[in-house]
Amino acid sequence: MEIYIFRVSSSKKNKRLIIFSNNQRPPLILPMASSHTHSPQDPKPLIVIHRIPSFSLTFAHRLIPSFSLFDPLAAAGDADPAAVLRSHAAEARAVLCVGPSPLGKETLDCLPSLEVVVTQCAGTDHIDLSECRRRGIAVANLGDAFSDDVADCAVGLLIDVLRKISASDRFVRAGSWPERGEFSLGVRVDSYADLQLEGKQVGIVGLGSIGSRIADRLIPFGCMISYTSRHKKPNVSYPYYRNIHDLAIKSDILILSCSLTDQTHHIVNKQVLAELGKDGVIINVGRGALINERELVKFLVEGEIGGAGLDVFEDEPNVPKELFGLDNVVLSPHQAVLTPESIKAAQDVVVANLEAFFSNKPLLTPIGWD
Amino acid sequence: MEIYIFRVSSSKKNKRLIIFSNNQRPPLILPMASSHTHSPQDPKPLIVIHRIPSFSLTFAHRLIPSFSLFDPLAAAGDADPAAVLRSHAAEARAVLCVGPSPLGKETLDCLPSLEVVVTQCAGTDHIDLSECRRRGIAVANLGDAFSDDVADCAVGLLIDVLRKISASDRFVRAGSWPERGEFSLGVRVDSYADLQLEGKQVGIVGLGSIGSRIADRLIPFGCMISYTSRHKKPNVSYPYYRNIHDLAIKSDILILSCSLTDQTHHIVNKQVLAELGKDGVIINVGRGALINERELVKFLVEGEIGGAGLDVFEDEPNVPKELFGLDNVVLSPHQAVLTPESIKAAQDVVVANLEAFFSNKPLLTPIGWD
Repeated sequence: MEIYIFRVSSSKKNKRLIIFSNNQRPPLILPMASSHTHSPQDPKPLIVIHRIPSFSLTFAHRLIPSFSLFDPLAAAGDADPAAVLRSHAAEARAVLCVGPSPLGKETLDCLPSLEVVVTQCAGTDHIDLSECRRRGIAVANLGDAFSDDVADCAVGLLIDVLRKISASDRFVRAGSWPERGEFSLGVRVDSYADLQLEGKQVGIVGLGSIGSRIADRLIPFGCMISYTSRHKKPNVSYPYYRNIHDLAIKSDILILSCSLTDQTHHIVNKQVLAELGKDGVIINVGRGALINERELVKFLVEGEIGGAGLDVFEDEPNVPKELFGLDNVVLSPHQAVLTPESIKAAQDVVVANLEAFFSNKPLLTPIGWD
Repeated sequence: MEIYIFRVSSSKKNKRLIIFSNNQRPPLILPMASSHTHSPQDPKPLIVIHRIPSFSLTFAHRLIPSFSLFDPLAAAGDADPAAVLRSHAAEARAVLCVGPSPLGKETLDCLPSLEVVVTQCAGTDHIDLSECRRRGIAVANLGDAFSDDVADCAVGLLIDVLRKISASDRFVRAGSWPERGEFSLGVRVDSYADLQLEGKQVGIVGLGSIGSRIADRLIPFGCMISYTSRHKKPNVSYPYYRNIHDLAIKSDILILSCSLTDQTHHIVNKQVLAELGKDGVIINVGRGALINERELVKFLVEGEIGGAGLDVFEDEPNVPKELFGLDNVVLSPHQAVLTPESIKAAQDVVVANLEAFFSNKPLLTPIGWD
């Protein structure tokens, strides 16, 4: 059996690749050395790399000393990847998800020996969790490796929307300051009362490792935190609301930091936006499909909501063009997790989970099945 | 003696006016009522409004019930404002500075009865403080009315520079995400390690009401704070450095939140920028002239410093055009104090100081003479 080793490509689609590669020593263009081939005699455990074409494994050098890596996508060529998987990796006990490659029943059917799925993604919405659970396959996510970065990004987007930092930066760069002598602060002149952070009611949707870090950060700004989540958190003193509607009614600002699941898909709909109200601001660092984007665009364009800071979108990399002209909106290309420190931390978690599994130790960051 | 009442103008230069006016009830276009004239029989104390043409008093309605207001600029017409001041306001005991109108020896010479200067500005660099002190004239600033807003803005600029929020917003709005499939994160690909806030050494220059609020806000992000100021602060546990050089050497990020004085003019010079280093980031929410702007531009253009978030500039509203193309720079048109909540708070402080003075009570926010 051959092993496929990934090259650092400068493909324009490989955003994460390019970024990762700057953090890599030694460089990731590894030789296709025969010593790395996987054969029945190879004592190294086999890991299937599950990815979509635009993502590649960027830290293969950290895994190759201990594991054999098999990439069905690279191996398949013109052949059917499922067939390649069946014929070459039927004995694999572990899958490593690289990027948000959907992992569902069809792939799992090809891997009858599978015991663990380790993902390099911040979210697990690409994995069919209930199917894994049904088959007794453990799933390890990244724990809180990305949580600080995402929380920082959420706060940055919030300050930016309220204080119109990106909009005023555009204003200055356009040379408008000397020409116009004023900064109009966007179209909604009557809603300046939204600008100060102090005293704002911030509703956090999903008070997990990211949401709780956002709360920690906003407290010194004088924000008042409340939240909704599947369950009321023990040892958390912030007011809890059973559903997003009650939270939206109470909040000036709604921050989405929950997972995307069947239950949270379009959790922000027309009704929630109306409840948040004309001066309300929405920040999304979760997943685009948490919001009914068509409705959000309508509310923003019609001035029925105060503003939005969005790191994620329903149809990435496509962003509704109606938003491009709005000064009360900040648009970020799904980069809340893109600092090298957190990428390194995420790689550490992936390696540690795989090493733990093959040493018969508990996974570091298994997801719960609640 | 006639009284001059200010009109809300929609002049394009009157940025603050336009913004203030949205917050005003009743509207500020007050009638030129004869009952408001100031005469020797008028029992209401006289306040001289000291301003530059592009600024006007926007809360006259709050002062007129208790005070007579005299605006030499409006009264002078083609005449010499100093002569008008001498002949019409020699008995004035109070001056209200509206906007950063320079107040020096020449004006003070026209006001022999002056006892107090109250300013509506966040800074006092427009007032000749040593001359006031020599003459025994008290000066009241705005205390910490604007401090929360400025601190929020400083943190917003910092997150924006590190995480390139404005740059990525431009990237998305330009339609580049689907086209290029990546966000290049600016020109300095080798310095991604600067992006995360956690663990960064933040040096604050001036740990007053603004600087200490910035520190409070950055602690939950995992930043490590140290500072320099005229004196070591009692009851502050952050490491203190006697001068900006030692602080810059120690810091990843330098935040300027001190007053502009003779001592702090160009406090950030070529040497400090070199000490801060190639990955260093500088945030300025104080005054433009705290930095030798020409040197800063040179360092930024040549990649000798990591990035900058600037709310203030040496020659506002003119911003060096060399900065317009840089993605590691965020440019804000001196708007750190422009939320309606803080503008209202500032007006409250001005009114309270004037009422205290004329009731023979202590000023609320006198500046110290240390």
